[in-house]
Amino acid sequence: MLVNGKPYRSIWREENTHYFGIIDQTKLPHQFVTIRLETLQNAVTAISDMLVRGAPLIGATTACGICLALLEDSSDAGLERACACLLNARPTAVNLRWALERMRTVLLSLIPEERVEAAYREAAKICDEDVAINEALGQHGAGLIRQHQHGKGSVNILTHCNAGWLATVDWGTALAPIYKAREQGIDLHVWVDETRPRNQGAHLTAWELEAAGIAHHLIVDNAGGHLMQQGKVDLCIVGTDRTAANGDVCNKIGTYLKALAAHDNSLPFYVALPGSTIDWTLDSGALIPIEERGEEEVLNVAGTTTGENITRVRIAPAGTVAANPAFDVTPARLVTGLITERGVCEASRAGLLSLYPEHG
Amino acid sequence: MLVNGKPYRSIWREENTHYFGIIDQTKLPHQFVTIRLETLQNAVTAISDMLVRGAPLIGATTACGICLALLEDSSDAGLERACACLLNARPTAVNLRWALERMRTVLLSLIPEERVEAAYREAAKICDEDVAINEALGQHGAGLIRQHQHGKGSVNILTHCNAGWLATVDWGTALAPIYKAREQGIDLHVWVDETRPRNQGAHLTAWELEAAGIAHHLIVDNAGGHLMQQGKVDLCIVGTDRTAANGDVCNKIGTYLKALAAHDNSLPFYVALPGSTIDWTLDSGALIPIEERGEEEVLNVAGTTTGENITRVRIAPAGTVAANPAFDVTPARLVTGLITERGVCEASRAGLLSLYPEHG
Repeated sequence: MLVNGKPYRSIWREENTHYFGIIDQTKLPHQFVTIRLETLQNAVTAISDMLVRGAPLIGATTACGICLALLEDSSDAGLERACACLLNARPTAVNLRWALERMRTVLLSLIPEERVEAAYREAAKICDEDVAINEALGQHGAGLIRQHQHGKGSVNILTHCNAGWLATVDWGTALAPIYKAREQGIDLHVWVDETRPRNQGAHLTAWELEAAGIAHHLIVDNAGGHLMQQGKVDLCIVGTDRTAANGDVCNKIGTYLKALAAHDNSLPFYVALPGSTIDWTLDSGALIPIEERGEEEVLNVAGTTTGENITRVRIAPAGTVAANPAFDVTPARLVTGLITERGVCEASRAGLLSLYPEHG
Repeated sequence: MLVNGKPYRSIWREENTHYFGIIDQTKLPHQFVTIRLETLQNAVTAISDMLVRGAPLIGATTACGICLALLEDSSDAGLERACACLLNARPTAVNLRWALERMRTVLLSLIPEERVEAAYREAAKICDEDVAINEALGQHGAGLIRQHQHGKGSVNILTHCNAGWLATVDWGTALAPIYKAREQGIDLHVWVDETRPRNQGAHLTAWELEAAGIAHHLIVDNAGGHLMQQGKVDLCIVGTDRTAANGDVCNKIGTYLKALAAHDNSLPFYVALPGSTIDWTLDSGALIPIEERGEEEVLNVAGTTTGENITRVRIAPAGTVAANPAFDVTPARLVTGLITERGVCEASRAGLLSLYPEHG
């Protein structure tokens, strides 16, 4: 997507080098800083310190990290060392393991001398596939948005958290339909949930939409229900970290509350996902373990006093403790449809199988 | 309630003086500072700068402001000037008008020489009545909490915003049942919604519960639905700014989302209110105008970096605009019951009339 008029992906090969470029997302929205990854350690740090985040982007960065590692040591031992380093960068990230497995399988079948070139080819393929999947998903979603044009101004879309291009290699998941609809000339306005505790809506989604010139308002997570009651929302589109085989979706904490409000106001609630996030082994979202994160994210808020440097302020009394469940599960009954790279389906096993019959 | 072992109201007459004491609530939770009100202007500033907030406390402070004004000028003109000053302190506060009207009616019927003493008597009455109403409401609510004891540990109560003793003269509304239940030895744990954008939950409710030694966890506004799904909430109790005659309640933005989640999980959702907040002229909550506040509350968050001084940080990109509806309306169908000083009733016209037949 465009940043200051220049097209960017969230990770890219720097021209005429073996290095990769990324955006330091910890500095957004207050500073737009790009960083060069020159070594395996650079890639590990980018993942562990969350300069890059979002499952697809973590997977892509992992693949690029393997490329950088092989530049220095393309032996079996070197490859295994690199895999171990990356695996520890964020131990619970599913896409990290997936990318490592894919790279290992391709590379171990080759002699060390052929590995560097093959790694760069495979990493590029992983990135390009992610872009193609999200773009296809965006096309299908844009068709849904088009159905909600009503001739009385913009289509109003509510989204939660950041499932934008910054979380993927490009396009995003929940935001891909919005970017595609915009390309098609549909008049749009987005309500951006700030998404406490980490404020990815305020920090990243607002920044993406600003950069793309798409009209939006930031709102607190409390406001969406009222806006729906007032007729100010036409549809909701959110992402998902993991989708159970029955169509239950596990996404950023608070998604369930918005789905309830959409249901209570007879508004469509769509979830956008690449097929790779469907966990066919889970019959119900209730089986998904919910990560409980540290309380400091709740007790403190990060922002800027200067416009650039980031300051954390404590909002709670000195002795207060906090609980911080990071995700919740929205039951399939509250989901109007799932938007995938293969089309839109009902949030149910039958719906998913209609698009992914190979899992039947 | 107790602060550091010493009993406090949120406003009090200072011993052997004509002055009043208040807590500077803008400094909570990071500093506990009491302020002396010596003049009408002190009272006006305390209200306009939100050193005191919460409808009942604003009413009480208004009455005290009249007392202070009359010390200097107890003529008709002096009284009217004082009323005009106070009215401008927060033009939309209903309890401010109500307190002014009550003081004027009492005082204008007297000769100027008798007014000072009568004003102090009436102001004390307004304060004591508020305390008595909230205490009665608390007793009724504690009975409900008692019904949710289940022998497997604490009763878990979720509350939103601050409807505690700091918002009233003492006891609070939503928190009064909790304080009364605690007095009765019921084992309690409270989930405290932080309540963006102004964070009254994080700043005030957490502070009150900490001071009272009641177990609690601060949570982001997004988390309540998930906690209910997980069986970690037994009941919800919230306050209300205005209750329509059909039982719809208008309360801090986000209340509606918690009511939806409680309903979806078959959990009781109670609203605590003094009868004075029932607007008998409104047949439906949909008729209540919703205040749209300034966007800076959404774009910024206040906290502390030092443990004492308050800093505001901007969370959003420089160009982002925000919308900030301050309240929402929870339909009566989602409210299990209304807790009032006269008892608990169904959230309906019939329910309200059963307790307040004089409005039939």
